Amino acid sequence: MTLSRIRIVGSGLIGTSIGLAAVAQGITVDMVDVDPRAQSLARDLVKSKTGEEIDLVLFAIPLGALGTVLNSEFALNTKAAFIDVASVKTKVKVEVLASNIPSARFLPSHPMAGREVGGAESARADLFQGRPWVIDSQGVDLDVVEVGKELIDLLGAHVIDLPVGEHDQAVALVSHLPQLMASMLAKQLLGAHELWLDLAGAGLRDTTRIAASDPQLWQEIIASNHLALHPLLQNLRADLDHVIASLEDQEQIAKLIDQGRAGRALIPGKHGGKARDYRHLPIVIEDKPGQLAALFDECANAKVNVEDLSIEHSPEQFTGLITLALSVKDAEILSEHLLKNGWNVHPARN
Amino acid sequence: MTLSRIRIVGSGLIGTSIGLAAVAQGITVDMVDVDPRAQSLARDLVKSKTGEEIDLVLFAIPLGALGTVLNSEFALNTKAAFIDVASVKTKVKVEVLASNIPSARFLPSHPMAGREVGGAESARADLFQGRPWVIDSQGVDLDVVEVGKELIDLLGAHVIDLPVGEHDQAVALVSHLPQLMASMLAKQLLGAHELWLDLAGAGLRDTTRIAASDPQLWQEIIASNHLALHPLLQNLRADLDHVIASLEDQEQIAKLIDQGRAGRALIPGKHGGKARDYRHLPIVIEDKPGQLAALFDECANAKVNVEDLSIEHSPEQFTGLITLALSVKDAEILSEHLLKNGWNVHPARN
Repeated sequence: MTLSRIRIVGSGLIGTSIGLAAVAQGITVDMVDVDPRAQSLARDLVKSKTGEEIDLVLFAIPLGALGTVLNSEFALNTKAAFIDVASVKTKVKVEVLASNIPSARFLPSHPMAGREVGGAESARADLFQGRPWVIDSQGVDLDVVEVGKELIDLLGAHVIDLPVGEHDQAVALVSHLPQLMASMLAKQLLGAHELWLDLAGAGLRDTTRIAASDPQLWQEIIASNHLALHPLLQNLRADLDHVIASLEDQEQIAKLIDQGRAGRALIPGKHGGKARDYRHLPIVIEDKPGQLAALFDECANAKVNVEDLSIEHSPEQFTGLITLALSVKDAEILSEHLLKNGWNVHPARN
Repeated sequence: MTLSRIRIVGSGLIGTSIGLAAVAQGITVDMVDVDPRAQSLARDLVKSKTGEEIDLVLFAIPLGALGTVLNSEFALNTKAAFIDVASVKTKVKVEVLASNIPSARFLPSHPMAGREVGGAESARADLFQGRPWVIDSQGVDLDVVEVGKELIDLLGAHVIDLPVGEHDQAVALVSHLPQLMASMLAKQLLGAHELWLDLAGAGLRDTTRIAASDPQLWQEIIASNHLALHPLLQNLRADLDHVIASLEDQEQIAKLIDQGRAGRALIPGKHGGKARDYRHLPIVIEDKPGQLAALFDECANAKVNVEDLSIEHSPEQFTGLITLALSVKDAEILSEHLLKNGWNVHPARN
């Protein structure tokens, strides 16, 4: 079976990102959503086409909404394979068993990719590049597993086959616990003096980045996975009690920071994701109009590809630091080109 | 008094970064360190020059080492102004009062900038660009305050004048608490299955990034600021207890995530708090060269001020979504202008 038509139910971040990536691989994609605004933007971005003879129906909707669409989608596409991308998998198995879809035609899966911002407007085709994508192939027909794997492969992700129970324990540790901690930390900022928050640096911004996540989505994920989360939170509380009791004890604090360092070092650095091999080129621009346009003209002249960028500047003025992310080679080319043309370029960094 | 010669005591990340930036501004810098290797690298990087008639002696060393050098530096440079950059400031005041340096000649200060990697080799001249830099000018001679402000200004940072006690409370919240939480979270990863950690994404990586920080540095910071940290950690424990008790209660979990979101939204985007008031305008651009430059030409034509932007696209191609951050008024103007000129603009969002 070769994949040529997918129907994606759900036009949020994940559904639309899958749509973008699949279309780029020559697959015909039909995007649908209960929200007309989201559906319209997603269909526009993805160049969605309504079609028949769907090979694969992919559910990219909240867990709580799954039960209501499984039967209607099965009625529309009785011959299709089915796959979902929800964050907690034991619950999905239960929903499928209660539906008309034969469980052997449904592949539970979970792409380990996401962003703290949601919606079709935040979608990106490279979201899954080099990322792990968990499936549980136990009891699923071989042709359904194969079509699922084909899609995952096309999106640039790699398959990890893991029973749903073990998946749920793993994501409690590497995804749900960090979410709760980021939210709890960010909550402590409520009521703080504005001036104090002006002192915040990249540390606070990074540790709380995922606190911007969607409450509707997360209330469901956390509650669905409470069994796996509970012991992790108990361990954390024991550690927190110890820190509170040891605040003045430099040796104990150093031990904690050291253990944190060791834990941090266990996280794999790269998943082959190209995005992380960029060089970052800092360019100080002047306070006059059109500088950004002029800079991108230079990029076009130098025939380099800007992969990402950030602007550091004081609001309501336009002076400051533009950091362009480029491939190693393009960073060299552009740096030389800009220096030659009188731009204030600083050495590139990783 | 105009700044022409600085002596920087301490050749770590902060001292060397200040040296790099000051030299770039035409100031003569003398870098010293008790560690010959660090001193040698820093002197080389900064093009350090030993000189006389030092205007300003800057201490960029751990808090615990400050007491041992205040008197010797004062003996060498009796006419100089003095400044330090330590992370906890009430302790510094105590050290200065116990030294021969008249407290009116010493400006306690703290640049809100850093990296999770340390040492002269991680130094960068742009580390302070656009960052806040706290001073406490209370009881300090005007000429000393002025020379400190001159340096901070030259480094591209902006001064926030705050009493040391309030500073220490603020950094407990925006810097020391995030450090402890990142370390505690990263510690939970010790002993996890390798396959589970392979599922880690950007969320875990970002929330634990600063867990890679230096234990020697942080044991001192935490212990020095334990009074300000204690109530914050107590609040956190109360929240953690509540989360543990409410794991299955979707409403309570949504409330926490929501509060975290609200707290997160208080963090200024780049510098001032203005980032919060921006509207975000999504524009789908075509896959052809020069589109970004053309878009910024349109912004210049429409006379709008782009405050920030992000690019969402697949690496190695240039198609996708540009999201421009603008004031509410500018977003309206630009949206209308772009629609009139055939751009694919979607409705702005907050």
